[in-house]
Amino acid sequence: MALKIYFAGSIRGGRVDAALYRRVIQYLQREHRVLTEHVGDLKLSALEQGRDGDAAIYDQDTGWLRESDVLIAECTCPSLGVGYELAYAENLGKPCYIFYDRTKTQLSAMLTGDPYFHIIPYSEECEIFKALDQILQNP
Amino acid sequence: MALKIYFAGSIRGGRVDAALYRRVIQYLQREHRVLTEHVGDLKLSALEQGRDGDAAIYDQDTGWLRESDVLIAECTCPSLGVGYELAYAENLGKPCYIFYDRTKTQLSAMLTGDPYFHIIPYSEECEIFKALDQILQNP
Repeated sequence: MALKIYFAGSIRGGRVDAALYRRVIQYLQREHRVLTEHVGDLKLSALEQGRDGDAAIYDQDTGWLRESDVLIAECTCPSLGVGYELAYAENLGKPCYIFYDRTKTQLSAMLTGDPYFHIIPYSEECEIFKALDQILQNP
Repeated sequence: MALKIYFAGSIRGGRVDAALYRRVIQYLQREHRVLTEHVGDLKLSALEQGRDGDAAIYDQDTGWLRESDVLIAECTCPSLGVGYELAYAENLGKPCYIFYDRTKTQLSAMLTGDPYFHIIPYSEECEIFKALDQILQNP
């Protein structure tokens, strides 16, 4: 069954991993629907849109969180928005899977210490896809 | 009346602003109690403590969030943990004040777009203390 996936990755926190996000999103899209496809757009603006413009983004993203079947987050690049989205999704009871490159960062204790989250440290990108195959069979 | 303040700042997301956190915490401590004083400790470890150690940090921090009267966040340095804490505090109905240096970063749309949060962009550090004087009179 095709799932509705909320993919979370850093936007204003930094776009250093944007190409990785795109590869993960494209992998997910082979069989599923990614609501947040724009997170992998290499030309996406990381500029503030004013309080009204940002409110529209917030309403859209929280709507997608409520609509989603599962949240997949790539957390190597620290991001306030992704941290917020994870707590929001937890509060809705959505399954949450957190990936991060253990050779590049130390994950927040607010994530690794929260027993609700599934944490998947990796050191090679191929490990992400292997784990996703398993997760998406039975999220 | 002395308030119990949860001060949120980046730890594993980066310690570039740790000295600023310390100055803000010391300012708050003149009349109030800061539950998370360690966030301003310049020698604080930013290393993962294993899933059990991180679970102890998570339990402590979420306990302090529940106990606090108000959350003050310095968000110039992106942080997954601070994003999580903000959503958690919002869910508890705690007043949340978010400071960031507008000359250094673009704040997440999940924060500026959320009408629940009080957002205070600044360009000079002295503006933080001026705003805190007002906030703490009537949080």
